Amino acid sequence: MNRIYFDHAATTPLDKRVLEKMTPYFCEMAGNANSQHYFGREAMKAVDEARDKIATLIGAKPSEIYFTSGGTEADNWALRGAAAAYGKKGKHFIISKIEHAAMLSTAADLEKQGFEFTYLDVDERGMISTKQLEKSIRPDTVFIGIMFANNEVGTIQPIQKAAEIAKKHGIPFFTDAVQAMGTLEINVKELGIDMMSFSAHKFYGPKGIGALYVRNGLTLGRLITGGHQERTKRGGTTNVPGVVGFAAALEIACAEMEENRKYVTRLRDKFISRVEKEIPYVKLNGHRTKRLPANADFSFEYIEGESILFSLDLAGIAVSSGSACSSGSLEPSHVLLAMGVDEALAHGSIRFTFGKHNTMDEVNYTVDKLKETVARLRKMSPLFAELKGEIKNV
Amino acid sequence: MNRIYFDHAATTPLDKRVLEKMTPYFCEMAGNANSQHYFGREAMKAVDEARDKIATLIGAKPSEIYFTSGGTEADNWALRGAAAAYGKKGKHFIISKIEHAAMLSTAADLEKQGFEFTYLDVDERGMISTKQLEKSIRPDTVFIGIMFANNEVGTIQPIQKAAEIAKKHGIPFFTDAVQAMGTLEINVKELGIDMMSFSAHKFYGPKGIGALYVRNGLTLGRLITGGHQERTKRGGTTNVPGVVGFAAALEIACAEMEENRKYVTRLRDKFISRVEKEIPYVKLNGHRTKRLPANADFSFEYIEGESILFSLDLAGIAVSSGSACSSGSLEPSHVLLAMGVDEALAHGSIRFTFGKHNTMDEVNYTVDKLKETVARLRKMSPLFAELKGEIKNV
Repeated sequence: MNRIYFDHAATTPLDKRVLEKMTPYFCEMAGNANSQHYFGREAMKAVDEARDKIATLIGAKPSEIYFTSGGTEADNWALRGAAAAYGKKGKHFIISKIEHAAMLSTAADLEKQGFEFTYLDVDERGMISTKQLEKSIRPDTVFIGIMFANNEVGTIQPIQKAAEIAKKHGIPFFTDAVQAMGTLEINVKELGIDMMSFSAHKFYGPKGIGALYVRNGLTLGRLITGGHQERTKRGGTTNVPGVVGFAAALEIACAEMEENRKYVTRLRDKFISRVEKEIPYVKLNGHRTKRLPANADFSFEYIEGESILFSLDLAGIAVSSGSACSSGSLEPSHVLLAMGVDEALAHGSIRFTFGKHNTMDEVNYTVDKLKETVARLRKMSPLFAELKGEIKNV
Repeated sequence: MNRIYFDHAATTPLDKRVLEKMTPYFCEMAGNANSQHYFGREAMKAVDEARDKIATLIGAKPSEIYFTSGGTEADNWALRGAAAAYGKKGKHFIISKIEHAAMLSTAADLEKQGFEFTYLDVDERGMISTKQLEKSIRPDTVFIGIMFANNEVGTIQPIQKAAEIAKKHGIPFFTDAVQAMGTLEINVKELGIDMMSFSAHKFYGPKGIGALYVRNGLTLGRLITGGHQERTKRGGTTNVPGVVGFAAALEIACAEMEENRKYVTRLRDKFISRVEKEIPYVKLNGHRTKRLPANADFSFEYIEGESILFSLDLAGIAVSSGSACSSGSLEPSHVLLAMGVDEALAHGSIRFTFGKHNTMDEVNYTVDKLKETVARLRKMSPLFAELKGEIKNV
């Protein structure tokens, strides 16, 4: 079976060019970057070059990049590190209702420790209100965190404006840029970002490696303590091939950003327009324009998202119902609920996220299959039968 | 230059057979293990198989293995997780003075939060006393952590006895087995271990992946919160190639353990016997028999370890002065100081750790170079000149 992968927001396959850059550091140049001999120096040289590259690509200094095991660790570090560093000054944090689970479950943990969180609402398109953000600021607010773009519905937040507000009030501003990095231009200095998490496997880099950007001068507690790695801020033997792959992937993503964005947007727009034209009772979730180029998230009335997912999977098409991180949970998406989507409709949502290896043929094939699937599932849906009855009765 | 790598305790090169097992999961089978479609299921199948393998190899159940980004994260998790879970019951922890930096700096952090630590002494061979351990137990002791084998001097601790004492007093017993895993047989059930950290890159597996074993039934707080990964205990997209490589490396290490141990012991013993015979004023640090097969740690009187390290490096031989994790620090090894080695001698120590790819020729070449190096450095050493004068004056 020729399989189609439309779940690039969950993870992306490693770019073969990235793997090539990583390969020498597995078996040959395999030193510990903290060792003082030749093998160690060669490893450290590779790590330093990677750090320089990444820093330059996001408008930061190398000394502002801290490698982590991924986005989740970076999110934890930002929140828990701020709690440790600023807890005495104040215990109030502001984040949005539609943050990633890495933020929301960490927030729940911190609430148990006596911290208070304000969760910003989003409108029906998944957009926060910077007015509400400003109104939520209290004298004891020590952290503002707004995700750059949502992993589920793709809505891109007004990060520069939010950062400005935070700065005006002297509050550190964090953004989870895991979904945006590699797809949108991000310059932390221009945008006024103080802390930012991002992860390589979302832009054709390796799994198991990410980073936290922390503006020089900003104090932050540590999450993982140990040796002298990462200027003593994050212990643990540096994942040299991971770091090298991370930088190579970001470099490629930035160099080919415009081209890929155009390409993926064309696939996505074709998909959206065909679905909206050819399948009745569907709703595009998220913002129509301020949206990640790869993302199309639809609610299909009268059917379960999971049923669509399994049917498409049988047809060789890989998509997602909500976020992969919350799979296994039967609860409807917290993102859609925050956007005011009703629970039944939230259960009927499917996320399609496109990638640079996808083709227009795959898009068209998928719409065809989706049409069949939705029609078939609706035929079996008691709710839909009722609706049809009602329509006939009108 | 044909380079010689004698720093296997810092890190090991990835076994080519391990890389082969990992490769399909980089670019082809590159799903997110939490995704519900084909690619996700294939990834999860690989993760499940790896977890099963690792569990079997250490005598645990798959549900007792939690993947982390490495040994340092696992050490942090054990300590901080115990602090979170048992802090209300008691605030007293017992660890040894010669734990890895990942343990010691985390302990220092917890002390700032109001926890109390007893640091067990070691004797001149680096061995803890189980008598002192038992005497140190208080009604509020909630954690005992003794490393399996020391990373610097290689001394293997009486883990089974320590675990028995902990069990008798109803206290969770943790061991950092990062250095021992893959070299010594470790069965957590037989040894009575409740929690154990280990890391793949120490036994020819990939960097950036490790695990914490936690006995079923034992409560532990979380370190990194997020999605539903690792039975909701550790968030973050699973590093599938890393996990696959981890299991493959441990499988090979266990299958070839006896053969490699014999081989490496032979290299190590030849090295020790030649150094002791041919170089005056040297002292083997650590236990003579209860010692990791790959480890030879020597103090060279009247000279700095770093000078030896740099001279050997120029000759193409990679060794370590103390642990790679504390490189950059000019302080003498906390391990040697705890063993009662005086500060000057502690500064003159070098660790040689052998591996399965090393040869007897490399050992002999290194002893020859070491002899020359030590003699040359001593010629330049004012301390040594003084000694020679004294000897002449006798």
